[in-house]
Parts: sequence; structure tokens; C-alpha cells
Amino acid sequence: MTPPLRVALLGCGTVGSQVLRLLGEQSEDLAARIGRRVEVAGIAVRRPAHHPDVPAHLLTTDARGLVTRPDVDLVVEVIGGIEPARTLMLAAFEAGKSVVSANKALLADDGVELHAAAAKAGVDLYYEAAVAGAIPLLRPLRESLAGDQIRRVVGIVNGTTNYILSRMVQTGAGFAEALAEATELGYAEADPTSDVDGFDAAAKAAILASLAFHTPVTAADVYREGISAVSSTDVARATEIGCTVKLLAICERVGNGDAGADTVSVRVHPAMIPTSHPLAAVGDAFNAVFVEAEAAGQLMFYGQGAGGEPTASAVLGDLVAVARNRLAGAAGQGTTGYANLSVRPMDETPTRYHVSLDVADKPGVLATVAHEFAVHDVSISTVRQDGSGDAATLVIVTHSAPDAALAATVAALRDMPAVRDVTSVLRVEGLA
Amino acid sequence: MTPPLRVALLGCGTVGSQVLRLLGEQSEDLAARIGRRVEVAGIAVRRPAHHPDVPAHLLTTDARGLVTRPDVDLVVEVIGGIEPARTLMLAAFEAGKSVVSANKALLADDGVELHAAAAKAGVDLYYEAAVAGAIPLLRPLRESLAGDQIRRVVGIVNGTTNYILSRMVQTGAGFAEALAEATELGYAEADPTSDVDGFDAAAKAAILASLAFHTPVTAADVYREGISAVSSTDVARATEIGCTVKLLAICERVGNGDAGADTVSVRVHPAMIPTSHPLAAVGDAFNAVFVEAEAAGQLMFYGQGAGGEPTASAVLGDLVAVARNRLAGAAGQGTTGYANLSVRPMDETPTRYHVSLDVADKPGVLATVAHEFAVHDVSISTVRQDGSGDAATLVIVTHSAPDAALAATVAALRDMPAVRDVTSVLRVEGLA
Repeated sequence: MTPPLRVALLGCGTVGSQVLRLLGEQSEDLAARIGRRVEVAGIAVRRPAHHPDVPAHLLTTDARGLVTRPDVDLVVEVIGGIEPARTLMLAAFEAGKSVVSANKALLADDGVELHAAAAKAGVDLYYEAAVAGAIPLLRPLRESLAGDQIRRVVGIVNGTTNYILSRMVQTGAGFAEALAEATELGYAEADPTSDVDGFDAAAKAAILASLAFHTPVTAADVYREGISAVSSTDVARATEIGCTVKLLAICERVGNGDAGADTVSVRVHPAMIPTSHPLAAVGDAFNAVFVEAEAAGQLMFYGQGAGGEPTASAVLGDLVAVARNRLAGAAGQGTTGYANLSVRPMDETPTRYHVSLDVADKPGVLATVAHEFAVHDVSISTVRQDGSGDAATLVIVTHSAPDAALAATVAALRDMPAVRDVTSVLRVEGLA
Repeated sequence: MTPPLRVALLGCGTVGSQVLRLLGEQSEDLAARIGRRVEVAGIAVRRPAHHPDVPAHLLTTDARGLVTRPDVDLVVEVIGGIEPARTLMLAAFEAGKSVVSANKALLADDGVELHAAAAKAGVDLYYEAAVAGAIPLLRPLRESLAGDQIRRVVGIVNGTTNYILSRMVQTGAGFAEALAEATELGYAEADPTSDVDGFDAAAKAAILASLAFHTPVTAADVYREGISAVSSTDVARATEIGCTVKLLAICERVGNGDAGADTVSVRVHPAMIPTSHPLAAVGDAFNAVFVEAEAAGQLMFYGQGAGGEPTASAVLGDLVAVARNRLAGAAGQGTTGYANLSVRPMDETPTRYHVSLDVADKPGVLATVAHEFAVHDVSISTVRQDGSGDAATLVIVTHSAPDAALAATVAALRDMPAVRDVTSVLRVEGLA
């Protein structure tokens, strides 16, 4: 009988335990789809005693020994974090083993080095599960759109912040209140920093941009703003102009006119988007990614972005692929960084702002405010002024301008005597 | 210098001319992504004189000679239809050449034979463009979800009928009027039969079901109803119950209780779906496909389902994949039919009906009508009765029952003296 392919599982938490379950339950289907049975060779965990449901003979604390064991063919890394995942992955490659990973932080930081190591060893590094859970996204970007030119990828890739913002929109609650609810319901972790401050989304944005633009982009290249400063006023203002507030991961190819090659802008920040935009309807903890390509036009991918089961589904899909590649004796489609476009600093990236101001309702104020925009070479798209007694509210949406010019305009407005308060400032995306 | 990979293009119409254009414009990117330059070896057309824009030395009427030429490495088939596409594809396989195709009719009819021929020759047969244009769908089903169990695939896969139904909903127009508008605007062909009667969607459903369930399904296995019988009354009734009308391609795995293996139901018919369903918002000529899998949960894919450019994008994505596979010396992930589930006849497939009746408004009518449902063992989910003078309207939505029982109930209602008219009958999908 043909010997089975043997898999080393690194980590057995939320995702790992689901991978293990599905490997068992789907074993016949997997065998039929791969052309060979798959068997778990061992499971590396830190504390074997914490895994009473797992056959004890499979558990080991010696992860390094496991990945290099000669009877291991493939490695599934679902530990997360940088180390020891990184060292283990490199050891696996060196030992000639393909790796399936769900590790966004590591891929975003050290993707280039890891891809190079996998390529050198002639093995695969697949990580569909690292971005947007079960939503098939990396494979479409890497393969389906390989004959096209991708212009932008705009996604809601963090379920926790999407849940919080959705609740703020639905209930009018402030950020703190909505976060507390999310924590209570298990949508936010005890330490929500990684989600709320946009680190998680930034890592995913780096991975998406790298694939979309065939350009190495690391998490450090990503401009990042979280949602903790989003206020109920921001949300209310968004509603007034037919928008909703979302935390977006935006990867954009930005033309450079005659000045040379295109650059890419990769950023994560809250933004107002029109309620008619396909991403506006993505509620609760769902994820969705919108892709615009030269020939394909507009595409959208939608589904569950997190959770043990959906993430395990993505891991197993990759496992089938790397297993088949191994049997075929050839590595699959890798990631190329040939285009090597430079990342444009946020200051120089064209964005649009929404600004709401409380101003004194007297002659000349609108002119003074409008002048300040003009001074910074920022063109105004729409203005709405509502008077109430001696005060008035000014709501301004700009055309696109370098982000630094917009930020400088807002700073200048704050210092202006006629401006009593800058009540809301948020970038705007997807407006015509 | 490494010799380029040489591509034979079969057909140079709407899709073929875009493939040709993109091969030229993207040649450097394609070379970087494949690792080898790609060159057009020849283009087979019926009437060379009709292609003045194409370099004459590339044109040939001898398609068979072209695909078997020793200097051709890969074949792109965008002729469409069964013959000569089928013979040419088989000749290509026999000559050891991978084929990229956009031919849904052929794949839906002869998929099994073609896959077998490709596998025997150790080459690839890719056809992402055959279903839903540029939307990456087949690769996600075939690869990304290869470690999961797909339960249902429900899609809007025909842009023409979606445009017509969208217009009927927006304007209250009847089918004939909306079709005339679609024809005028170029959304419908001069002979709209293939779209309007559901043949196009049925071919796509067969392909989707084959991939989703690892089971050979041909177009002949697909139950098919078009939209020409959808009336403005149907559309109005749908609106009244919070639904909209869509032509759906539905591929479902149906459990069989203790009676043995699961079966699959594959069908194309108009249906009412709740306006809250993600597919309800898919307007105009867009396509979208909703996938439900055991572990991944609910996924949706959305984009342009037709048109030369989007379809060419999908063709080129496949071309990059088969080119890389060729250089790696291994065929890619094929299609497996190992599960070989049987296709359940429509009569036995569980569905739900919406039925609107004009009845005499007198005692006992509701009881008589309700009795007729009970006689056929059909359970009623909701009833709404509106009286007006001596007549009343009854709107009934059933629970799920075998389609034949539902159809028999409706037939019996039509013969009932108390029923003056059956004004609308449509299946309902996606209701809780």
C-alpha cells in the first residue's frame, strides 16, 4: 500500500484543533482529492497536559525535532507570532518540507525571506488562512488575476473592529461602549490592541499589497490608524452625508505622471464610504475585500474572516494543494516581487477628507475657511452650512489632495479664531 | 536566450481579441510572472479577412494544423460551441498541449471525457472563464475549498436575465418589455433563447456542481426553467413579501436520511429570495455566487460575469497557471469525480413555493385551500388573506416539500371551484 503523507501540526489552539478535527472527519475525501492518504505525524504544543482530547502519543514539546523528522512530509504552522514560528518554518524548508501557515504577522514581517527560503528549497509556502480566514483571496490574487493588472484592493479585514463600528452605527454608542460590548460577546480579545489599533489589519494589508502588486511590502511600510479615535459624532456625520464608517485596508497603485514608475500606497485607517458601496453592507464580524483590476473590473469576496473552523478550512485547502504539489514533484505558483514598486509615504498619498466644523455664524467665516483650504492647494468638493443662532456647522468634503496638505489644512483650521471646534475629521473613500 | 512559450489562439472574437490585446500589453508582466516570455504562435479564425487589425502572418483557417504544430506549447480555445472546439481540444491534448478554455457549453456537456483526455496526456485543462467571467470561482471551488465539504452553491450566473429581472423590479415592466429594452441596450443578444430560457445558466450550474461535489454533472442533468414566464404580478407579489425575483443556479447536496448516500440537486429556475439575502442586491448585469461550506461557512463572490475584457482576464490568469505548470513539468490540480453522487430528480427535490390565489371571499374557502395542501402533505409556512368585496387574495408560502407535491398541489388548486385564478407561482429560496 502507498504510504500516507505525514503532516506535522505546530500548535493546537483554536485553529489547530479544528484542523485536527477536519483532518480526521474528512480523511476519505482528502485522500480522494489528493490521491494519497494524509496522516498526522505529530503535534507540537507547549503544554501537552492542556490537550487531553488529543491522542497523547502524537503530542510533543519538541517542535524543532518534529518538523525535521524524516517521516514528516508537510508542516502546518498555526502557532502564530514571530518566534518560534519563524525558526521552525525555516527549519522545515531546509529539511525539504512545504509549509502551510495562518501566520499573518510573520508573513507580513518576513515574507520576502521566507519565500526565498521556500523557493531555494523547492518547496511551497501557502498561507491563504492568514488573510480574511476562509475567504479565498490570496489564491485568486496570486493566480486567477495573474494575467491582469490590479489597481486597488480595499478590504474590511478585521472582524473585531467591523463589529465595533457596526454597533456604533446601529446604536449611536461611542467607541468605549461598543468595545465593551464586543469584549463581552467574545468579538474582542481581553487585550484588543492588535485589532483596535489596526496592527492586525496592517499585517494583512502588507500581505495583500505584496501579492497584488508583485512588490515586497512589510507591515512597517503600512500607514496605520486604528478606530479608538472614531467618535459617535464621526458616525453621525457620516450618516448625514450618506456614508458609513469602516476600518479599511487599502492597497493602491498610484500613478506618477511623467515622474517615473508607479508607486503603491498601503494604508489602514477608518474612513467614510458611501452606503451604496458594496463594502458598506458588510456587517458584524464579516470580512470582505473589493478588488479592482484593469481587465477584470470590480470584484468582491465576502465571508467569515476569522474563527477556528473557517480558518481551518483555508488551511486544509492549502494542505491539499501542497500535498498534490509534493506528489507531482513540483512546487506551486509562488509569490513574485519582480515589480519592486516603491511605497509612497502617506504624506504624499492622495486622499480625501471630510471635515466638520463649529464656526461663528457671522459674515466672512465661510470665506476665511475656504481660503485656508485654497492656501494648502486643497480643492473643496461639497460644503454644507447649517446656521443655529450665532453658531453654524460647516461640513466640508474635499477633492483628492496629498494627505499632508489635508492634515495641514485641518491643523490650521483648529487655530483659526472663527473656528470654535473641529468636531469631526475622517478620510473619505469610494465617493464619486 | 530561453525560447518563449508559444500560444495558439483559437477564435478571435469578443474574448479572443481581448486576450490578444492583453498578451501584447502585459507581455513583460506575464514574462515576469511565468518566468518565460509568451508569444502568439498563430490565431485560427474562420474568415481571416474579418480581422484586419491582426498581423496577417498569424492568421490561419487551419485550426487543427495550428494546435498540433510542434512549435505550439499551449492552446487557448475561445471559439465556443461544441464543434469544432471539442475535436480541437482533444487534438491538443493528444499532442501534449495544455488548454485554457472559456467554453461553458462544451465543458458542461463533455467535461468528463475532456478531463480524462487531459489527465491521460498529463496536461492541464483550465476554464475559469467559462463561469461568471472574471470572478475567480472555479479555482476557489477546486482548490481553496478542497479541504472542506461544500453544501450549496447558489448563483446569479447570467447577466442578461439578471438585467431583465432587475428592470422588471425597478420599473414594474413585464418580461417582454424588459427584454426589448435589454436587447436595445446590448444586454441581450438578437436570439436571447440561450440566456432567457436558462440554457447558459444550466451549463454553468453543471460545471459548478461537478467541481463543488466532485461528481460528474452534465447540462442534461440540470433541471431548467427560464424567466419568460415571470410576470409583473410575480415581481409585485415578491415585493409584498419582502423578496425579489432572481434567476438562480442552485447546486445543493441533499441528505438522504438513512436511505443511503447523499444526492445532489442541480437546477436553474426563477425564485423569490429575501431582499436581505446577499444575492438580492446583485443588480444589472453583474454576477454573484454564494457558497456554503461545512467549515468555511458562507462565502460570496461578486463581479462582472461577461464581456470581452473580464473574460480575457480569467483566460490569462489560467494561461499563467498552465504555463507555469508546463515549465515545472507537472500538471496542476485537476477535477475529481470520485464522489460520484447521483443527481436527484427535480420531482423529488425539496423546494418551497409561493402561491398567490384569487378566491371567492366566503366561508370555508381557506379551509378548502388549506386542505388541498395537507392532502399533498405540504406544510404551510405563512398565509396572508386580503378581502376585497366578494373576492379575496390568498398569499401562501409553503415549507419545504418535494417539488412534485408542490406542483401537484398547485394543479389541484387551479381546478378548484372556489379558486378563481392562480395569479402567481414561484419557488422561494433563502427564507428562514
